[in-house]
Amino acid sequence: MQIAVLLFEGFTTLDAVGPYELLARLPGAETVFVAKQAGPVRNDQGSLALVADKSLAEVPRPDIVLIPGGPETRETMHDPEIQEWVRTADATSTWTTSVCTGSLVLGAAGVLDGRRATTHWLAYEELRALGAEPTGERVVFDGKYVTAAGVSSGIDMALHLLGRIAGDEVAQTVQLLTEYDPQPPYDAGSPEKAPAHLVARWRGENVESLARD
Amino acid sequence: MQIAVLLFEGFTTLDAVGPYELLARLPGAETVFVAKQAGPVRNDQGSLALVADKSLAEVPRPDIVLIPGGPETRETMHDPEIQEWVRTADATSTWTTSVCTGSLVLGAAGVLDGRRATTHWLAYEELRALGAEPTGERVVFDGKYVTAAGVSSGIDMALHLLGRIAGDEVAQTVQLLTEYDPQPPYDAGSPEKAPAHLVARWRGENVESLARD
Repeated sequence: MQIAVLLFEGFTTLDAVGPYELLARLPGAETVFVAKQAGPVRNDQGSLALVADKSLAEVPRPDIVLIPGGPETRETMHDPEIQEWVRTADATSTWTTSVCTGSLVLGAAGVLDGRRATTHWLAYEELRALGAEPTGERVVFDGKYVTAAGVSSGIDMALHLLGRIAGDEVAQTVQLLTEYDPQPPYDAGSPEKAPAHLVARWRGENVESLARD
Repeated sequence: MQIAVLLFEGFTTLDAVGPYELLARLPGAETVFVAKQAGPVRNDQGSLALVADKSLAEVPRPDIVLIPGGPETRETMHDPEIQEWVRTADATSTWTTSVCTGSLVLGAAGVLDGRRATTHWLAYEELRALGAEPTGERVVFDGKYVTAAGVSSGIDMALHLLGRIAGDEVAQTVQLLTEYDPQPPYDAGSPEKAPAHLVARWRGENVESLARD
């Protein structure tokens, strides 16, 4: 079972690392970070680079494809080399997955056409414009396509996937060992729950300005 | 406000990246990943390297110190160069923090003596042996020392810290933008909640065998 995590300049770190941390504990899984070229890839904040151990060409047929998002997604999604790799990998994958605006990369490659999917709450309309049907759920399964909402939601997605792939006991073991027993001190993690004036402030921003999503 | 995240061979990725993703969004913060030498540092799984942009010597006085854990913590905690940096940085820090077995590194450096603290649920006794008083809480504040339980708990710690440093509204905004509205499909994230036979299985393992924690 090979899991490929795509990196591109400006990716959001937790989008990739959240699900990675859990999925990589799947017994027998080999996880590899890939990018257009092997080597360090800098994130959206600019303060961290992750190393892609392999180029896209070296990992053509992963079993699980994981695409993170980031404010640079809009550049990445129109990159012909990225699109070609997504389509090729998707053709033989068992699961094709994304976190946050990573679903825009999948959508632009044409693999979400007519499918239920999700993305960061500020990007629903962009996802719809790419042919998918956005839902407000945190993790959306449509066949082998699994998309998660913003940034931290990839952790929940990974637990769902572990359960489907290896059964409840493996998923629960990973949850126990990573102590994923969330106790946030606020309840502001979705536009339905956050203070209305904060949501309104961000809805008023142009999507292009989301330099930190 | 400078935030330094320590990397060492065998660190657990989410321990570092979970709180980083949230804390780096603090207005005006500069975040830097540090290690004994600048350059790529490989994680516990072996499948990912993060780049430390600076050496320890280059970042002697961060405002926030963040120490992740990992199965190699026991080697790192006895490293004289790491211990010296932790003590020096702690002498002038505003907050000294850890996730998972990162508290063992703080403990071995002598900065948690007599303090309430926490760690991964399988490492309480090791933490006690280093002079701290382990508690079962997910995030423990004792003065400027903030320690979090296993792996994923650093995200909750970061939200608490954001609230203390910048106020509830900044913390809630970060929670909203990272969509931290956890909805795990299982409720097995602590030894009190997980199926008893899974907990017993891991308690029976020697701590040294926790190659994936």
